[in-house]
Amino acid sequence: MSAVPKEFLHQAVTAKKASIQPFAASEKIYVEGSRPDIRVPMRKVSQSDTLGRFGPEQNPPVYVYDTSGPYTDPKLSIDLRQGLPALREDWIAERGDTEKLAGPSSAYGLQRQHDPELAGLRFEHIRKPRRAMEGANVTQMHYARQGIITQEMEYIAIRENQKLDALSEIYKFQHPGESFGASIPKLITPEFVRDEVARGRAIIPNNINHPESEPMIIGRNFLVKINCNLGNSAVTSSIEEEVEKMLWSIRWGGDTVMDLSTGKNIHETREWIIRNSPVPIGTVPIYQALEKVDGKAEELTWEIFRDTLIEQAEQGVDYFTIHAGIRLPFIPLTAKRATGIVSRGGSIMAKWCLAHHKESFLYTHFEDICEIMKAYDVAFSLGDGLRPGSIADANDEAQFAELRTLGELTKIAWEHDVQTMIEGPGHVPMHMIKANMEEQFKHCHEAPFYTLGPLTTDIAPGYDHITSAIGAAMIGWYGTAMLCYVTPKEHLGLPNKQDVRDGIIAYKIAAHAADLAKGHPGAQARDNALSKARFEFRWQDQFNLSLDPEKALEFHDETLPQEGAKQAHFCSMCGPHFCSMKITQDVRDYAQSHHLNDEEALKVGMEEMSEEFVKHGSEIYQKV
Amino acid sequence: MSAVPKEFLHQAVTAKKASIQPFAASEKIYVEGSRPDIRVPMRKVSQSDTLGRFGPEQNPPVYVYDTSGPYTDPKLSIDLRQGLPALREDWIAERGDTEKLAGPSSAYGLQRQHDPELAGLRFEHIRKPRRAMEGANVTQMHYARQGIITQEMEYIAIRENQKLDALSEIYKFQHPGESFGASIPKLITPEFVRDEVARGRAIIPNNINHPESEPMIIGRNFLVKINCNLGNSAVTSSIEEEVEKMLWSIRWGGDTVMDLSTGKNIHETREWIIRNSPVPIGTVPIYQALEKVDGKAEELTWEIFRDTLIEQAEQGVDYFTIHAGIRLPFIPLTAKRATGIVSRGGSIMAKWCLAHHKESFLYTHFEDICEIMKAYDVAFSLGDGLRPGSIADANDEAQFAELRTLGELTKIAWEHDVQTMIEGPGHVPMHMIKANMEEQFKHCHEAPFYTLGPLTTDIAPGYDHITSAIGAAMIGWYGTAMLCYVTPKEHLGLPNKQDVRDGIIAYKIAAHAADLAKGHPGAQARDNALSKARFEFRWQDQFNLSLDPEKALEFHDETLPQEGAKQAHFCSMCGPHFCSMKITQDVRDYAQSHHLNDEEALKVGMEEMSEEFVKHGSEIYQKV
Repeated sequence: MSAVPKEFLHQAVTAKKASIQPFAASEKIYVEGSRPDIRVPMRKVSQSDTLGRFGPEQNPPVYVYDTSGPYTDPKLSIDLRQGLPALREDWIAERGDTEKLAGPSSAYGLQRQHDPELAGLRFEHIRKPRRAMEGANVTQMHYARQGIITQEMEYIAIRENQKLDALSEIYKFQHPGESFGASIPKLITPEFVRDEVARGRAIIPNNINHPESEPMIIGRNFLVKINCNLGNSAVTSSIEEEVEKMLWSIRWGGDTVMDLSTGKNIHETREWIIRNSPVPIGTVPIYQALEKVDGKAEELTWEIFRDTLIEQAEQGVDYFTIHAGIRLPFIPLTAKRATGIVSRGGSIMAKWCLAHHKESFLYTHFEDICEIMKAYDVAFSLGDGLRPGSIADANDEAQFAELRTLGELTKIAWEHDVQTMIEGPGHVPMHMIKANMEEQFKHCHEAPFYTLGPLTTDIAPGYDHITSAIGAAMIGWYGTAMLCYVTPKEHLGLPNKQDVRDGIIAYKIAAHAADLAKGHPGAQARDNALSKARFEFRWQDQFNLSLDPEKALEFHDETLPQEGAKQAHFCSMCGPHFCSMKITQDVRDYAQSHHLNDEEALKVGMEEMSEEFVKHGSEIYQKV
Repeated sequence: MSAVPKEFLHQAVTAKKASIQPFAASEKIYVEGSRPDIRVPMRKVSQSDTLGRFGPEQNPPVYVYDTSGPYTDPKLSIDLRQGLPALREDWIAERGDTEKLAGPSSAYGLQRQHDPELAGLRFEHIRKPRRAMEGANVTQMHYARQGIITQEMEYIAIRENQKLDALSEIYKFQHPGESFGASIPKLITPEFVRDEVARGRAIIPNNINHPESEPMIIGRNFLVKINCNLGNSAVTSSIEEEVEKMLWSIRWGGDTVMDLSTGKNIHETREWIIRNSPVPIGTVPIYQALEKVDGKAEELTWEIFRDTLIEQAEQGVDYFTIHAGIRLPFIPLTAKRATGIVSRGGSIMAKWCLAHHKESFLYTHFEDICEIMKAYDVAFSLGDGLRPGSIADANDEAQFAELRTLGELTKIAWEHDVQTMIEGPGHVPMHMIKANMEEQFKHCHEAPFYTLGPLTTDIAPGYDHITSAIGAAMIGWYGTAMLCYVTPKEHLGLPNKQDVRDGIIAYKIAAHAADLAKGHPGAQARDNALSKARFEFRWQDQFNLSLDPEKALEFHDETLPQEGAKQAHFCSMCGPHFCSMKITQDVRDYAQSHHLNDEEALKVGMEEMSEEFVKHGSEIYQKV
């Protein structure tokens, strides 16, 4: 890859309106917290009226969790070369437990900053890094355990509730006969957020060097989140493509983004991404460390790795995947596997362990790593380097031995008040998924689980977003807090933008299906609103309320592009004649207007009803 | 739609090689049964050798269940104007319990046959219909209950086993250290097929007037099957498109096809489809009956419906969806629903019931319907007219009241030895899916369950193949025998060919994931073979073994189109440097060649291993 001039980067972005333009009928609103700089963004989707017999009925707006950041606020002007505003800057500074450094304290970070050849690539407004003052611990877990409710926690409580007061209106509307009172969903309070973080059941990944991030939480008592991977490899992709992929990911609903770059200029790519990302960024630091030793795993050292952690922590990475659970005795357990070790980080560390005949430096220096994590509030994502890479290898001893080790490491991390989540598989057939969640519960002390899929069969390369959405939905229901997406290109190649969109939507479906199944407060409100719109032939509302409004509209218009068809009381599937929605609405109106809601009324009114219905009937089918 | 000249139909087909050309590395083979005319087709997928250190190892072929019929046999010449050969004709005739009629015995069938205006549309080689002789019962269930093993049953036993003897080789190969003996999968015998049909736990849909069909079975102790819908509507589509969609459906793995046409020339379209279909065809006869009364549901009569059943039975429809479970008292139960009645057939019958203030003629004439079914061996698919059309309506009393009625009707059907399956929902959140299967078990006496999805959320129009594949995989695992596919166009429009392919692959994934989770004998063999190919970088084998080889190849080639990349030991995802499969294979080879398979060996060999690995190590990363 050659150096990329800034103008080009900028051009590339302004050209891609598709990534940042607001969805139809959507407005970015902000819900203010206890102080004016706590402003939680939501997407407000307006609905049209229902045209009833007795005049129009209003349909209340639906508020949607919004990961897209400032980009979809038309009032703000966006310049990727400037980066996003640092919305958490004051909160962090006010705490008085951090200091601004003169410059990067990692050797590599310094070197890259002063390399004149990188001038054309480098982000121009690099902030001076912030670090905990000597002896301080700046993690959200540390604050939580002292009973402090941070601004981040309050922000998250508002965000997770998604204006439930408004949802209650929707609910009332759809069940006009019922009182809402009894079913009011539990509101998520800032105290609840604090308590969950304090006991380690949820994490808030937000490095003090990523003040641009909009706080979010990962834990099983909150909305299920999804992560999207991006990153260049030696074979393909460049900086502006990666930034564009990040924008694209958050537009479609990515809650966090992992930058898995392994090619050139990883450091500079990451800076561009973080400075422009409103969502937490995760990385696998061993990838970059390996680049620094020219790909020779056995030449990796603790010192190189340590410098890489500091380099990335000072750029603002919010969570690190660390494969510290791969212990030497576990490696031979993979020898008989059908597909051995399929985690990149896992295979690198396995190689190192074998070459040195030692436990890895990730394991032996785990407490040193904790010291770094708590100085910047980087969260652990303890990597499952021995996850199964095929149905044949699911739930084997190698996998579970590592999982138990991750549980032990979690305890150590928590002694340092370092936020921790646990990564999980991989490839697992349906009947073996639940055991994964059970083992994780049992051995990892309720730390959040973060799984890749799992894929429920191996025979569908090209469709692994689907093979894995099945497993993801199930494990999300069982209690997994975050789902790492899989795109259709998995096992075949690097995803392009279409693949990223397909992967994200598949995972938004899995996460939402899990929220529904878990009974998360308010999860069903959007389903109910969309179903009501569908039933009432409010086509545009149906599109607008969907996970991918543009695709829904495009599919509808393939067969019925005329504007009138969006008011039509039928679609191309059945035609006007056979539309069950149309027929049933007539049936229902009739039954309701005659109070035919119970058996008694039915018996009494049946004869009259029959007559009237015939009279009425000739009006029902209006030929087009 | 205007009349379609035959030449055009033929052209349309010969032009569409994509629908009938065999997959790469695949050969159509036939396994012969106890007589030469029992020839069960399978797709044999050849694999390339593994290039190991000590010379090449052979990888055995994988045998795949093949729904594509004679079309993918290059030795046969296909002419849609002639129809397929009648492979079951002799079996049916030999039984001596049927007679050939002089012509259609339905009034409508006769009328269509003699309408000169339809000459340009009509299939040219319409066979004279066959019917049970007076007093005879020609259902597979009837034979089974008398202890008879039909040719169809033997055919199915061979087909369901998929050459398990060959699978055993694959299994042995992949677990070289283990003896195969203990895990030998149970072979499915003709006796087992007979017993399952006799007790009603499985059905073999094959009308005596569809002798072209290749026998298949639907039951929870067999492979999970999928159904694909096609059919024109008043808005779109024509005969040759529907025939083409049928070919396309079976190419991708559709086990049965439902013709849901509601537009013009339903009768002629159906004839074309059945004469060319090697898979069972299902219909919803009420759709056509409604057309006969110009869409006025209240004008439907038993006589019109009865004539339609006979008309379709004599054409060869293999199963009928009959919404006989919609009883009058259930209809008001839908009044408070979010989306009322969403089944087309259900809403038609509900309207009829309300208009006449009577139980429907489907319910009151149920035994008369059984008489027709057993004269042709048409199977019941008892329709769930009150299935939920939204998450909000899942598992409500209307739905379950109908389900219980379907259980009662099943008993009546079985008194007539009529094969019966039960249709299920619809829209159901994950945590409520299992109750559907449990209720069905409880009330329907183990008759096979046949569900649409279910969709696990309503918020993703445009992606309902995914929202529903999640539910379908789960309910398949729980015991559903056949899954009715949903395409991405669901709720938005009529599917085109791409949508059909996407829907089928999503459902093949769901069905196979369910087979794996149920532990169906041999289901995992294909996963294992593909995983092994993946691990060994046999890219072409990986593509060939997948559900959609063409898509897998296309995706791979998007980033690495060069022929050499298909031998490469990496892909564009990670590049050569970071390929975990590559690294792990080195690790594994090393561990295996040093017998590091248990803890003891590990301790002994570790020091030596370490040294050798370093020596070896420098060869491992070869820069590209």
